[in-house]
Amino acid sequence: MFLVYLQVGCENYIRIVVRKSKDKLFVCGTHAFQPRCRHYEFTEQNGFRMQMPKKEDEVGTGMCPFDPNHNSTAIYINGSFYAATVSDPDSRDPLILQKNSESILIRTQPRDSIFLNEPDFVSSYDKDDKVFFFFREMAVENINCGKAVFSRVGRVCKMDKGGAVRTLQNTFTSFFKARINCSIPGEIPFYFDEMQSTSEFGQGNYRPTKDSGDRSDMIYAVFNTPENAIRGSAVCAYKYTDINQVFKRRFKGQESYNYNWLPVSWDNTPSPHPEECHNGSQGAYGYKHLNFIKSHPLMDEAVQPSGGRPMLVFTSINAKFTQIAVDWQVLAADKNYYDVMFVGTDDGRVIKAINKGTKGEIESVVIEDIQVMPHGVPVTSLKIHSDRNDQSQQRLIVMSKERIITIPLQRCNRSNTCSSCVALQDPYCAWNQGLKQCLAAETGVQSIATGINSNCQPEVEVEPKTQAPEVLTTPAKCTCANTKPEDEAEKEILAKNQDKNDKVEMGNSEEVFTADLEGNEDAKAGATMTAQAGGAPLEILVTAVIIAILVSLVVGFFIGYKFQSCRKNRDRDVFYESSSLQRGRNRLSSGDNPYFHTDPKNMQPLKQSNIVVNLKNGKANSLAEPKTVMKSNKVYL
Amino acid sequence: MFLVYLQVGCENYIRIVVRKSKDKLFVCGTHAFQPRCRHYEFTEQNGFRMQMPKKEDEVGTGMCPFDPNHNSTAIYINGSFYAATVSDPDSRDPLILQKNSESILIRTQPRDSIFLNEPDFVSSYDKDDKVFFFFREMAVENINCGKAVFSRVGRVCKMDKGGAVRTLQNTFTSFFKARINCSIPGEIPFYFDEMQSTSEFGQGNYRPTKDSGDRSDMIYAVFNTPENAIRGSAVCAYKYTDINQVFKRRFKGQESYNYNWLPVSWDNTPSPHPEECHNGSQGAYGYKHLNFIKSHPLMDEAVQPSGGRPMLVFTSINAKFTQIAVDWQVLAADKNYYDVMFVGTDDGRVIKAINKGTKGEIESVVIEDIQVMPHGVPVTSLKIHSDRNDQSQQRLIVMSKERIITIPLQRCNRSNTCSSCVALQDPYCAWNQGLKQCLAAETGVQSIATGINSNCQPEVEVEPKTQAPEVLTTPAKCTCANTKPEDEAEKEILAKNQDKNDKVEMGNSEEVFTADLEGNEDAKAGATMTAQAGGAPLEILVTAVIIAILVSLVVGFFIGYKFQSCRKNRDRDVFYESSSLQRGRNRLSSGDNPYFHTDPKNMQPLKQSNIVVNLKNGKANSLAEPKTVMKSNKVYL
Repeated sequence: MFLVYLQVGCENYIRIVVRKSKDKLFVCGTHAFQPRCRHYEFTEQNGFRMQMPKKEDEVGTGMCPFDPNHNSTAIYINGSFYAATVSDPDSRDPLILQKNSESILIRTQPRDSIFLNEPDFVSSYDKDDKVFFFFREMAVENINCGKAVFSRVGRVCKMDKGGAVRTLQNTFTSFFKARINCSIPGEIPFYFDEMQSTSEFGQGNYRPTKDSGDRSDMIYAVFNTPENAIRGSAVCAYKYTDINQVFKRRFKGQESYNYNWLPVSWDNTPSPHPEECHNGSQGAYGYKHLNFIKSHPLMDEAVQPSGGRPMLVFTSINAKFTQIAVDWQVLAADKNYYDVMFVGTDDGRVIKAINKGTKGEIESVVIEDIQVMPHGVPVTSLKIHSDRNDQSQQRLIVMSKERIITIPLQRCNRSNTCSSCVALQDPYCAWNQGLKQCLAAETGVQSIATGINSNCQPEVEVEPKTQAPEVLTTPAKCTCANTKPEDEAEKEILAKNQDKNDKVEMGNSEEVFTADLEGNEDAKAGATMTAQAGGAPLEILVTAVIIAILVSLVVGFFIGYKFQSCRKNRDRDVFYESSSLQRGRNRLSSGDNPYFHTDPKNMQPLKQSNIVVNLKNGKANSLAEPKTVMKSNKVYL
Repeated sequence: MFLVYLQVGCENYIRIVVRKSKDKLFVCGTHAFQPRCRHYEFTEQNGFRMQMPKKEDEVGTGMCPFDPNHNSTAIYINGSFYAATVSDPDSRDPLILQKNSESILIRTQPRDSIFLNEPDFVSSYDKDDKVFFFFREMAVENINCGKAVFSRVGRVCKMDKGGAVRTLQNTFTSFFKARINCSIPGEIPFYFDEMQSTSEFGQGNYRPTKDSGDRSDMIYAVFNTPENAIRGSAVCAYKYTDINQVFKRRFKGQESYNYNWLPVSWDNTPSPHPEECHNGSQGAYGYKHLNFIKSHPLMDEAVQPSGGRPMLVFTSINAKFTQIAVDWQVLAADKNYYDVMFVGTDDGRVIKAINKGTKGEIESVVIEDIQVMPHGVPVTSLKIHSDRNDQSQQRLIVMSKERIITIPLQRCNRSNTCSSCVALQDPYCAWNQGLKQCLAAETGVQSIATGINSNCQPEVEVEPKTQAPEVLTTPAKCTCANTKPEDEAEKEILAKNQDKNDKVEMGNSEEVFTADLEGNEDAKAGATMTAQAGGAPLEILVTAVIIAILVSLVVGFFIGYKFQSCRKNRDRDVFYESSSLQRGRNRLSSGDNPYFHTDPKNMQPLKQSNIVVNLKNGKANSLAEPKTVMKSNKVYL
């Protein structure tokens, strides 16, 4: 076993970086399967450095995983450190742990699979009097029907001091969990069972609204199908109040071994409801109450997604969703507020999408599909840095294991006609009739619902005003300068090979330009050839005439060949990339695109017959006309 | 309710056509939700006609569904008629029914969901002393974990005369069922839960074998994911002995309501094992025995597929498998015997595939992917008419709702070089070095394992000898002539609009030729233009010279443009159709093609991390060079 450790994890992998306060960090590393933690503080001169006077490294057991591949999460709240990780090298003892300012440890029930069963932790948040943990785990309630992973939200009360001396000492008395459902509804719902990541909590609304008050605390999450299955991904949105409500309802329990997991009747549920947070929980509960808590961590109901179905569904042979960030309640020119989703994939793309369905039903629109990382490099984190007053500061920070790249939240200026600007269906972008520009503005010509607006005047192609915004890369340096967004500092510490990567990124952005030049070369060559042909001398001989014609034919052939070849390459890009910056009514909305569908009506015939009926999937992206503006949608940074 | 019936099913839909003997048919129709049956007999003059002396129509309740959309199956064995259908207009009382020669009816337990729970019946077969029924149904044992459809094989003893007067009178005492598993194995297996169709039983082997004695009774089946899910299809193969073995093992039972479904201990299982067939079952069992049978129709274990995994897995946005036929144990030039699978899809294609994995593991090779029906027309039945002594009689009969088309089992003669012949990896085809032809033969140059054979001499393109086999359509007439394969007569009765369809088919085959001519036109045009250019008169004026050059340039441009355009279209066909008649080592084998994969190693990383690792899917089909031979793989008949 030791040898295996040596091979796979003998470096010190930093797995926990939490902010204690504005200028203090708490960092834990696996330290060759002997986790250790340190305190760092920010200094004006040197960025973050070890806290002075130098403390001994803390033992990180239960705070940081032993195995660098274990998915853990941690958060620091008012002097208390919360971690969701494992406490042993074999990852057999998963736990949620609280270490308070007096260094007292409280944890979840040890080695009890009904509490945590091979979990992969995704994220943790501080909300009101509770701490919430999002994770996926083996579903203990499903075990009689076969192994399955379910997604969960778990929570503990911040004030929980553990149970009484005999029962649940140093063990949370307020840990409960519920299934998080992200599925395509139907007689047999199709579940996206494995949560991959969540956005931050934010004030949002899953559907467009004109009322700036019609928003609530929400979180978006990315789900995948199991690794062994046909690849599918989805984004679901959840209201904080819906999450909380599930914990106030019935518990799920098993009367005894070999019984079904069924809802526990209210008669058998202690009162007050065990989910309520009390200060110092030991005193508040009797033995019977604690015993119930000890055997009933699971809520009966699942948290249902807003709108009752996924915000976005994606199936691809080659890609899955990995990350999500949401720009909350972007005010569009149609005076609606939209939650704009930015979804990262494991092949380096960022997909920007909204829900345009105003009447409750979800009608997702994929606005952009940008190749941000090189092909095959998974997006590992997405953050939005949004300053509503300064457009240049509205950027999406995209991270992979080895790079940090930022891109603007909108690229309106790439559209140079009214119709193409409107066709974006992008809440950020509207066409300014006066300036004849597609601007990131809250007024102008726009039509998110249809992508067509009759106010667009007959069109004259306008040259895009600037080329500058095309260069989207803002390579971040691997130092902790205070000009960077605060939340990102932790990520940058991990970006060791940044200098090298900067070069790679430059290489990639050069590739874009090289491709463009190649495109132009054809045109140039064509022009040159034509000029030569036009300038042929008068006194040419008969044979020369024939030769000239033959040469012209050959030259013309190659120009034509190259020209079509060039068109073809663009065409292919569109098909492979699902690029979607398209003209007119070819937006990738629900049902239009085979890769994105949210409307199960398309997938669900009334009666399934052995004689399978073919279901229409609408037009594929490949039907889009190939045109120059498409190129702008794919950017290798 | 009556109004609804009027709308959807007031015609007489023929749903049951079974052969009583070589010259007698038993036919049932829904008859406006009042099913009726009739006997037909074959006469030399008029084909099949109503049996004389004319009998009254029989009431068809329990023998034919009321609703034409219900999936039923029936079989006639030695004077006994067996049907698996429903006995009421609402399809709430599914049953398997036996009507013997004395018109005594025996059926499965009425309205008991543990026997049959919303089943869709797929097929029925006569084997030894039992009748087997393949179906899918709502899985009662999974109900605590959510609704799911499972695939099943059920069976009754032919000699079963029902239970004693008090228990199970006129009810089968020998109906048992088992789950049929078709899944990609893994920690969390991925199940293809919904059986769509089966092949006939035949003497086969799921993997290549040199030993003609190494074969056993087998059946192949097609499975899909639920309609609501991401579309996926699979083919699994099962041994008859494996099916039989499962019924000799433990039963699955529920101790009481709210208990898990668990295997029943041997102590609690009656002896002799209830699955054994006895003559006249009433006498053979006591009350306790019958009571067990009454509550335990389900076997604990599932029937596992040969090779432990699917023979073929297919994921597509637009298509699903619908039907399968197997040409059993085709002897290839490598002296191995192969089961050749022909799989129909719901978009009108037939996919021909084999398993080339000799060492137990399954390595499927897709040999051909032929568009037999027009796009979007589901294949509803596939039959093989194989006369090993007469190649021209070796044909695949492909049926849709409104057409019957036959295609040859092999199209070796389309390959005109040794390497392209070998690259087919088709067990039927081998290159004859003497005749320099790709022949359907059991000797010659071949390499099914790799698609490359070093015995191929340096190549000279040989013109295909005949064009005749290109016309694959053999439009079947809608009369019951005795020249047709016997099994097909029933299907043809349903092909009402055949005359019209013949025309459509001709239209389609014309399209193929039109497309070919178009391709040639380009070449012709090019030739003509070159000749004109070469033949320009000497006395041309200076301005004419310039015009000639410009015209030549334009003409050359268009030729080049068209030429590349033509290449491009071919390219696209390859990508969209997953066409696979390819040169050299670009065969669609396991892992090579994103649409077909049988190797879960490609899909299953060791540890799933939140930072999702991108998994390679090998090269896509689109990397194949575009070339003329590919065109031959897509045939619109």
